[in-house]
Amino acid sequence: MRIIVDAMGGDNAPESAVWGGALAAKEYGEEVLLVGKPEVVANVLKEKGLSDVKGITIMPANDLVDMHDDPATVLRRKPDSSMAVAFKLLKAGEGDALVSAGNTGALLTGATLYGGRIKGIRRGALAPVMPCANGQVMLCDAGANTECTAEMLLQFAFLASLYAEKINGVVKPRVGLVNNGTEDTKGDPLRKEAYALLKKAGDEGRLNFVGNVEGSMVPLGACDVAVCDGFTGNVQLKTIEGVAKFMSKEIKGVFMASVGTKLGYLLCKKGMDDFREVFNQDKIGGAPFLGIAKPVIKAHGSSNEIAVMNAVRQAIAYTKSGMIDAVKENIQYMTVSE
Amino acid sequence: MRIIVDAMGGDNAPESAVWGGALAAKEYGEEVLLVGKPEVVANVLKEKGLSDVKGITIMPANDLVDMHDDPATVLRRKPDSSMAVAFKLLKAGEGDALVSAGNTGALLTGATLYGGRIKGIRRGALAPVMPCANGQVMLCDAGANTECTAEMLLQFAFLASLYAEKINGVVKPRVGLVNNGTEDTKGDPLRKEAYALLKKAGDEGRLNFVGNVEGSMVPLGACDVAVCDGFTGNVQLKTIEGVAKFMSKEIKGVFMASVGTKLGYLLCKKGMDDFREVFNQDKIGGAPFLGIAKPVIKAHGSSNEIAVMNAVRQAIAYTKSGMIDAVKENIQYMTVSE
Repeated sequence: MRIIVDAMGGDNAPESAVWGGALAAKEYGEEVLLVGKPEVVANVLKEKGLSDVKGITIMPANDLVDMHDDPATVLRRKPDSSMAVAFKLLKAGEGDALVSAGNTGALLTGATLYGGRIKGIRRGALAPVMPCANGQVMLCDAGANTECTAEMLLQFAFLASLYAEKINGVVKPRVGLVNNGTEDTKGDPLRKEAYALLKKAGDEGRLNFVGNVEGSMVPLGACDVAVCDGFTGNVQLKTIEGVAKFMSKEIKGVFMASVGTKLGYLLCKKGMDDFREVFNQDKIGGAPFLGIAKPVIKAHGSSNEIAVMNAVRQAIAYTKSGMIDAVKENIQYMTVSE
Repeated sequence: MRIIVDAMGGDNAPESAVWGGALAAKEYGEEVLLVGKPEVVANVLKEKGLSDVKGITIMPANDLVDMHDDPATVLRRKPDSSMAVAFKLLKAGEGDALVSAGNTGALLTGATLYGGRIKGIRRGALAPVMPCANGQVMLCDAGANTECTAEMLLQFAFLASLYAEKINGVVKPRVGLVNNGTEDTKGDPLRKEAYALLKKAGDEGRLNFVGNVEGSMVPLGACDVAVCDGFTGNVQLKTIEGVAKFMSKEIKGVFMASVGTKLGYLLCKKGMDDFREVFNQDKIGGAPFLGIAKPVIKAHGSSNEIAVMNAVRQAIAYTKSGMIDAVKENIQYMTVSE
């Protein structure tokens, strides 16, 4: 297996992307293609003492996509950017999956253009995993599609449920529809229509649909997959991140207040380390773009080398999982006849 | 001034509603009308030793609205419920403002039917205040209107900004539009249209519009007023509550792990108490329904007596503030000509 890594994508590229990609090659024993400026990539490998790791190939790309580039056009405008070259390698079958910490919009455009949507799937969706009470929850869609139809929400439910099952090992993932109340009748027309589709899929035993979930129920662990349109999903994802950051800072302030509280911290250090670990996104790695015919993983923009390494691990698991074939086999249940 | 309190509304009614209403009468020296079953209300007053507080009047209502009643019809179906009687008193001018911890939907229906919308205002909006980094943020609309127009979002911005200024004492409240990115061009058609209206109001100096805010920026304190449609606002509000609950529980688990960590907790107790106080909704009291011609405050369903007392405090401040007149005076700037 060969995983393509965009060596120039992300806030900490090229260092984190190259370093993390090389660590992954060493750790997991699969081939890694590092796409970027050859001398830059080679230098990072040398600095980190990873030049001799087996299975690493540097693929030249002399330009890069940055966060200010227009997502819709940049891959055409910058055909020699690391992301564009990475996608062309994916399309040509030179690699099995693609990992990038770069511009999210450009990556989604590329995933659709070069990876291609699975036949019958209307749109690709971003599906990050977040910590919640007693485990993790996958949000889908968390930002790829600002406007959605009920059929798209049904597809997001199937895609994320199959991913949670086949890659994350969740048995019968509980699928919830993010809504403004739990009653069957809640929500705007989109939610009401999606509820009916999800209910039917649940009744037929194709999804483990647990009904509507309120915003609070997602962090409190009421479902394994939280289905929403990409606008709401983006707001919810970032609200979770923001509250976690705000509270973590407040708690740090409590511990740093005096000599006494610092001693208090030392007494709780192990537990606090575990607590921080719950919210450590690095160990997750990245968010898959679901519905695309080849595995594409979006690593967080601020990924360090551990996050990139884990994103490659995720890409390997995704490639091995047979999840994309499972989507193809079930596509008739995700399609609404008109 | 006379504040009408729905003595039978909320999870902890009648105890908390009666107790809190009576404490408010005692504390703030304004008249309080307690609407409910006379013997039940009198009993609670007696139990709490508050029967002799000056300014308390019991107004009889022998039925009650519960959480399962249909919000749209219950006030007509149950004309002798405490909430229906409270609204009739408000409409008749027997009281200046109304406080209830009861069924939110029924309260909004009643506010519109009996309180009446301010002329030119399209819809009433729920505007709770949440803790955030360095202060508090008012979310508007947080759930009253599942579907919104851009004009409604403009009105929510004005209403919440005027409230934040006149009741909460925020100088030039920073108004942000909750969106899926900070760039001017972000969002669905509703957000793009609302952005243009808010930008214009900002440029004219009528609002302190700070632009689009992502979900994370709300808890991190980027604005004093976060404007959104009621669907997204409800999801965001509840997500904040859910993450706060989840994290608080995790931290409690850290402190309760062993004798050593319990000692650690004692060393940090003052700071942790202050931290909890930041997230203590009881001291806020309730969320105003904005855009209504008379002050209506929704206390949290799980309000204790302190929360109800503070909701009455808020109702008094709202009544005194001249905020509703300020809305009337500025209504032409909140109206989009067709």
